[in-house]
Amino acid sequence: MKKIINKSENVVEEMLEGMVKAHPQYLKRVEDSNVLVRQNSPVKGKVALVSGGGSGHEPAHSGFVGLGMLDGAVAGEVFTSPTPEQILKGIKAVDGGAGVLLIIKNYSGDVMNFEMASELAQMEGIQVEQVIVNDDVAVEDSTYTVGRRGIAGTILVHKITGAAAEKGFDLDDVKRVAEKTIKNVRTMGMSLIPCIVPAVGKPSFEIGEDEMEIGLGIHGEPGIRKEKIKTADQIAAILLNNILDDMKLEKDDEVAVMVNGLGGTPLMELYIVNNEVNKLLSEKGIKIYKTIVGDYMTSLEMAGASISLLKLDDELKELLDSKADTPAFRQL
Amino acid sequence: MKKIINKSENVVEEMLEGMVKAHPQYLKRVEDSNVLVRQNSPVKGKVALVSGGGSGHEPAHSGFVGLGMLDGAVAGEVFTSPTPEQILKGIKAVDGGAGVLLIIKNYSGDVMNFEMASELAQMEGIQVEQVIVNDDVAVEDSTYTVGRRGIAGTILVHKITGAAAEKGFDLDDVKRVAEKTIKNVRTMGMSLIPCIVPAVGKPSFEIGEDEMEIGLGIHGEPGIRKEKIKTADQIAAILLNNILDDMKLEKDDEVAVMVNGLGGTPLMELYIVNNEVNKLLSEKGIKIYKTIVGDYMTSLEMAGASISLLKLDDELKELLDSKADTPAFRQL
Repeated sequence: MKKIINKSENVVEEMLEGMVKAHPQYLKRVEDSNVLVRQNSPVKGKVALVSGGGSGHEPAHSGFVGLGMLDGAVAGEVFTSPTPEQILKGIKAVDGGAGVLLIIKNYSGDVMNFEMASELAQMEGIQVEQVIVNDDVAVEDSTYTVGRRGIAGTILVHKITGAAAEKGFDLDDVKRVAEKTIKNVRTMGMSLIPCIVPAVGKPSFEIGEDEMEIGLGIHGEPGIRKEKIKTADQIAAILLNNILDDMKLEKDDEVAVMVNGLGGTPLMELYIVNNEVNKLLSEKGIKIYKTIVGDYMTSLEMAGASISLLKLDDELKELLDSKADTPAFRQL
Repeated sequence: MKKIINKSENVVEEMLEGMVKAHPQYLKRVEDSNVLVRQNSPVKGKVALVSGGGSGHEPAHSGFVGLGMLDGAVAGEVFTSPTPEQILKGIKAVDGGAGVLLIIKNYSGDVMNFEMASELAQMEGIQVEQVIVNDDVAVEDSTYTVGRRGIAGTILVHKITGAAAEKGFDLDDVKRVAEKTIKNVRTMGMSLIPCIVPAVGKPSFEIGEDEMEIGLGIHGEPGIRKEKIKTADQIAAILLNNILDDMKLEKDDEVAVMVNGLGGTPLMELYIVNNEVNKLLSEKGIKIYKTIVGDYMTSLEMAGASISLLKLDDELKELLDSKADTPAFRQL
């Protein structure tokens, strides 16, 4: 295992400290917790957004804490859900009196712990709602989920829902926008090289030297099948066709595209994939309104990529375009 | 070789197309060239900045084309200098009548070809100046250079010099700011896993399973020595001490810190390194004015990191803080 770390049991603690030290203008840490919140939290009168989950997906989620996106992010150990107590601390730290929306990726542990935290917060008089992101079209049920997994599309939910909250939408309306985004977003990924959880020290699944894994998850769980490595164009077509089979876009529909790297993939390769995604969508007459390329929802050092499509309407376009200022996503 | 590509001879072409398709609001491609320039180029009356070099360092350099940074970036083949003809096309495409500054990383091929392009442009009546970035403290002369190499510190030169040009500084003054930044910036890197040039198909140097390479270059050239892998804290100390031996900072000096990933390193590890860099600098009484963590100057999928320090004065702080809007670096 080749990693630039100290002790494997300290990676989350040291990472969170390193993040706060890098971005003091954006982030502060809630005392005795693995929760990072906006420097100016709580923002009085604004609906607050909290997300989180296991670590190892950086910049998700704490990299998206800031203006126009999240108010707080709760970090569990690597690929491990944060506890309800930690999530509760996050909720309390960001509540500005207008309620809190939890954005949960669909993993059994996350759903259970976030929902428990929600109940605890409501018992303390805080208004809390939640949405569950399930954008991965690869598998219906996985090692860690009932139903589809939540993966890179979650970042688009952060962006759009965060913009709604920033514009002063109330809790019901922010939740409505979040649910519409979740309904409209689909993702599928693949990998060439698996990742190694620091505390485990070996890969969670094996991929042959000439193989790739299609439809993998972001926690090192295997995908739907192994295949011989194909070209970037073929990979783009496989992922995109699976998404399009599921979401039924029509000619002249407008979409946002995200080509997401899983941590160990050069940006060069993501742009090569984007080149083909753009071509394939254009051939079908689907209009690309905005494209985001980079490492947003990763799986440690896994080499691979995912493609997300978000079907847009006028409301979603306006929210997608609005200002954001966070460590990992900024838009003027 | 596991890569998400099509034919190895097409990677640069397809990457550039994928970039323009991802960022049409920022970038346009100069006809019959591997040059990407600002969508609104040439900007009349503004000093224009051009950088570039071999591909494989993405987002450098075309990811930094936009408001407050570069006007144009010229891409060579992977780890290969662009030709003088290509660079000349870049210069001509961005010249807005106030002159052009070339920001060159110190590699023999780049220096030769950019200087030749500069002479050709001057013969056509364009005012051109150049600066050479040589921030790498690891080696005095390398496989590819006479004198020190230009690496991640180049991004800080883009940011600060770009801000000066945006504020309306004239060519001499933009060049003065660039030279001050170059004089004040130092970098050193290390890697755990080398990279593979697509057209070559195998690593350019070998690193043992329990080894790391200290002081490597960004073109796969070896470093100054191999060592047993050390902890993140020890790695941070080795790199930082080499830099501090060279730049002689004093208590209360202010610096910008960049912890740069080489392409295959998880963000988690970069933040762990930053945590220790911050601690070590604080212990010495050196003030950290701003920190930048991420993949800015990469070497394909190489796993590793570099640390850069830039000594600041009031002028550099103001320029570092000013607005930037490019595909890979944005600041509100």
